[in-house]
Amino acid sequence: MFITRREHFNAAHRLYREDYTDSRNLEVFGKCSNPNWHGHNYVLYVTIKGEVSPETGFVANLKTLGEIIHQHIIDKIDHKNMNIEVDFMKGRLASTENLAIAIWEELETPIKYIGAELHSVRVHETENNYVEYFGKH
Amino acid sequence: MFITRREHFNAAHRLYREDYTDSRNLEVFGKCSNPNWHGHNYVLYVTIKGEVSPETGFVANLKTLGEIIHQHIIDKIDHKNMNIEVDFMKGRLASTENLAIAIWEELETPIKYIGAELHSVRVHETENNYVEYFGKH
Amino acid sequence: MFITRREHFNAAHRLYREDYTDSRNLEVFGKCSNPNWHGHNYVLYVTIKGEVSPETGFVANLKTLGEIIHQHIIDKIDHKNMNIEVDFMKGRLASTENLAIAIWEELETPIKYIGAELHSVRVHETENNYVEYFGKH
Amino acid sequence: MFITRREHFNAAHRLYREDYTDSRNLEVFGKCSNPNWHGHNYVLYVTIKGEVSPETGFVANLKTLGEIIHQHIIDKIDHKNMNIEVDFMKGRLASTENLAIAIWEELETPIKYIGAELHSVRVHETENNYVEYFGKH
Amino acid sequence: MFITRREHFNAAHRLYREDYTDSRNLEVFGKCSNPNWHGHNYVLYVTIKGEVSPETGFVANLKTLGEIIHQHIIDKIDHKNMNIEVDFMKGRLASTENLAIAIWEELETPIKYIGAELHSVRVHETENNYVEYFGKH
Amino acid sequence: MFITRREHFNAAHRLYREDYTDSRNLEVFGKCSNPNWHGHNYVLYVTIKGEVSPETGFVANLKTLGEIIHQHIIDKIDHKNMNIEVDFMKGRLASTENLAIAIWEELETPIKYIGAELHSVRVHETENNYVEYFGKH
Repeated sequence: MFITRREHFNAAHRLYREDYTDSRNLEVFGKCSNPNWHGHNYVLYVTIKGEVSPETGFVANLKTLGEIIHQHIIDKIDHKNMNIEVDFMKGRLASTENLAIAIWEELETPIKYIGAELHSVRVHETENNYVEYFGKH
Repeated sequence: MFITRREHFNAAHRLYREDYTDSRNLEVFGKCSNPNWHGHNYVLYVTIKGEVSPETGFVANLKTLGEIIHQHIIDKIDHKNMNIEVDFMKGRLASTENLAIAIWEELETPIKYIGAELHSVRVHETENNYVEYFGKH
Repeated sequence: MFITRREHFNAAHRLYREDYTDSRNLEVFGKCSNPNWHGHNYVLYVTIKGEVSPETGFVANLKTLGEIIHQHIIDKIDHKNMNIEVDFMKGRLASTENLAIAIWEELETPIKYIGAELHSVRVHETENNYVEYFGKH
Repeated sequence: MFITRREHFNAAHRLYREDYTDSRNLEVFGKCSNPNWHGHNYVLYVTIKGEVSPETGFVANLKTLGEIIHQHIIDKIDHKNMNIEVDFMKGRLASTENLAIAIWEELETPIKYIGAELHSVRVHETENNYVEYFGKH
Repeated sequence: MFITRREHFNAAHRLYREDYTDSRNLEVFGKCSNPNWHGHNYVLYVTIKGEVSPETGFVANLKTLGEIIHQHIIDKIDHKNMNIEVDFMKGRLASTENLAIAIWEELETPIKYIGAELHSVRVHETENNYVEYFGKH
Repeated sequence: MFITRREHFNAAHRLYREDYTDSRNLEVFGKCSNPNWHGHNYVLYVTIKGEVSPETGFVANLKTLGEIIHQHIIDKIDHKNMNIEVDFMKGRLASTENLAIAIWEELETPIKYIGAELHSVRVHETENNYVEYFGKH
């Protein structure tokens, strides 16, 4: 059984490499390399899996799952600049792919504490683009 | 090839255990334990898999699939109280997880009769929460 | 300038009249007259109007608007039975139309205190049905 | 007859006043005053009104309307920082209300050239908040 | 009080004038002039207004409203070619504007019979384009 | 890591077999067998998988992915009649299942050239129906 919780956050970001020239950044990252930043309303889907408890009918308490996501992710990134201010994005290029990996790494352990297993992290950057990460295999 | 049909229903429910005290029910099930009921607009996605018929270009006739879902699920649960009135929920805690399992059990056999195989049952309780069940393995 | 805030709640309800027979209730209110209740995920849009403050660029602080809607509406109706438990629905048939009127009457005064004017209350019962109320004129 | 065109853009912004202290900015503008910026996927609805041409069945050519919105708005603001880089936001607090007014002022004249009249500008900052402006009356 | 019912239909259409050359049709109507047709999933919102009945809490019975829309519109246009097969589109250019006017003319009278008044007809051709018609004034 | 790009197109189609009588076509394909065509706004989700480049943080450049989908699919099918005008649908029954297979076959090779692998093609014909294809295994 898989259960999924949707959360929202918005943040500024910029895609660029310091070791690239400005024109190389523009060529590789396009409009996303704007030095003055831009931002998105991100939508995050966290899917966990586990057995249904015969006692409660739950895989896990969704309220607790929501609190874990807020404490580890939303409270740190919402209304923030993910290149500068978000500890779990330090040292990573601020692509949606890297964001999904970082969110996975933040959530994998705490979700074990509620007796379930993280299955996937899906991040929508716009209505037209999303990435999904299932961990290292 | 996988094909998916979306259907809607709304229903009242309550999460609680008779062997719990009221305060224990409130602690475990939160606002969902309200003795006076509450309800949702549920969204149901039924995914089936099979080979594409060279004769029709279909895995299965979607109209027939819709009729199966209506006959076995929607007609029984729509505008109903799922704790009291829905035969396939009898004896189950009315969690979304248990609802998905019950729907799976209702649909697995009839979908075989149309030459396909049930792949997953996904139930959205709100815009922010859904469960997905792929059967016992 | 008009600003709109969307909120969600879910609730059980039943449409019926005590002075009707069961068959008359069924005839007039259809499946919505189910004595065992059913429920919905309601979506509420509150639109207010006012001048844009040159100091803040706001008509009103959206956070404050959200708090008003939560205090007067959401906290009272979310996960509740609107026929039994919701003070502002006492004595009213629990139709979406009457719900919109009741929400208008609850919000009209508190919205004046934040220097704006209530313009409309829109309530979606399902994806396919909504009502909108602009007050008495 | 009213016709509406939806467009998208994303941008960074910050709500603050230079004549406020940091703590005053935080008090008035909340998380939106973050000095390191944040951003949104904005959704823009431009509604125009006019007579239906008996020759074409159109109020106006939607492709031309789309080009006008792109030339005057989207090309200037998409993937940009609206406090720093967007000419039509210069000297304005970057609230959604002011953004809608600025978009109105940019579009009002060019829409006259295609034989229609601007009716409203609606800007969604998130799924839960939008503003709508109908011009000065 | 305003109540709105959403319905769906899909249809083929083509925008062109017989008295135009092919190249003129292409210039004016673009890809929509394709002689081999194309089509859309249209979304129709019908808004009616009226007083709330103290007896039922309704402006009008939504089920009856839905039946009127199906009988007069959906049953005639769904899965059809609106240039060839739809009586109420005969002699009209198949633009979304003209479609909205034709739907208005079909619905205005039957809605009076249920004690309400047609307020607006909104037709979405795609997620990005819609028209809204309020009748002749 | 999986990344998904959403695209839209609309097209006319008809489901029928030349070797069936009209009544047999109607029986098997229902309203979709209308000889005068009908059409849909299709929504296409293309999911690719691959490793995240440490240099760019990308699995693949989404702009390039979008261009591939436009060149091979959208430019050929948008505003077209898929039974008559679309090369990759020649000789196939115009069902959504066959459309997904044809899109898979068109995209599989070009996506290899950008260093990723096609994972799935999902096609939504309406809000209520979609198919998903993962290739031959």
